[in-house]
Amino acid sequence: MDFEEKTIKRTEVFDGHIFKVVVDDVELPNQLGQAKRELIFHGGAVAVLPVTKDNRIVLVKQYRKAIEKVSYEIPAGKLEAGEAQHEQEAAARELEEETGYSGQLTKIYDFYTATGFCNEKIRLYLGTDLQKVPNPRPQDDDEVLEILELTYAECMDLVASGAIEDAKTIIALQYYALTFGGNL
Amino acid sequence: MDFEEKTIKRTEVFDGHIFKVVVDDVELPNQLGQAKRELIFHGGAVAVLPVTKDNRIVLVKQYRKAIEKVSYEIPAGKLEAGEAQHEQEAAARELEEETGYSGQLTKIYDFYTATGFCNEKIRLYLGTDLQKVPNPRPQDDDEVLEILELTYAECMDLVASGAIEDAKTIIALQYYALTFGGNL
Repeated sequence: MDFEEKTIKRTEVFDGHIFKVVVDDVELPNQLGQAKRELIFHGGAVAVLPVTKDNRIVLVKQYRKAIEKVSYEIPAGKLEAGEAQHEQEAAARELEEETGYSGQLTKIYDFYTATGFCNEKIRLYLGTDLQKVPNPRPQDDDEVLEILELTYAECMDLVASGAIEDAKTIIALQYYALTFGGNL
Repeated sequence: MDFEEKTIKRTEVFDGHIFKVVVDDVELPNQLGQAKRELIFHGGAVAVLPVTKDNRIVLVKQYRKAIEKVSYEIPAGKLEAGEAQHEQEAAARELEEETGYSGQLTKIYDFYTATGFCNEKIRLYLGTDLQKVPNPRPQDDDEVLEILELTYAECMDLVASGAIEDAKTIIALQYYALTFGGNL
């Protein structure tokens, strides 16, 4: 069985700072004819699950305009242009800017957030051996953040209450439970 | 501390079948001034982690144009207009269309796939007591799917090889390990 969809024509409908939007006319495999695909192209992002020496998870509380809600999430940020070869440095930068911590970063895994229409890929790291940076890089000037250090049980309360509804944060918390479950 | 960003002006730049794209001018809280937010509005989706009676996980192999790759994922589909009140029926429909199974559906949780710029919310269900439907609803005519029934260990091999890189599928597999870990 053939799966690939070949692009016949691509129409760019939006070219923004965060993402680009195109509509592709595609040739379906197996003589199924043609279809349209609405696609978001995004430069990718990094995220860090920061775990303190006393087993607290560091979360960032912030407003997310797309969902019109305050959201509790692990620190994350998008890759800047040309930064894809330096993912771990980008992860270290986001960790420092958003939480004031530096630490030892270890890749957990990469995942796509919404394969049906978007190519955003998140590189997820575990951050351990956390140390407060004396003069941390400042937060972005259009971000209002509050930092929390919570036990896994407290994080799970936020999942149960709906305050944590962010996919990357749920992936990170489940990873924590699977990996450090014996220490909860 | 105030977090909310108030919309001053909204400009719609794309109105598609799968999502809508707007650019908001927002007033930042705490007298921080203004900023722009590029936003994707999506009607939401349902997904099912189907587990057979002999503890196999049912996955769908399909081509994802946004990432130009074949992807192994749990069955999922977007909510149709007016369907938000009938999420579980939508989940049952996607399970049947994509895998030919009906079953007992139990909500796991809801999550947003990409809070930074998109409001897509996925309602994730566990599907158990799976039964083959005699004459299942047909697959969508622009989808080419192959169905696999794999053990958890086989799924983890696909995560390790990079064939599974889809966030909702990783969330579902982690949930499976945390919930049924004793039976692996």
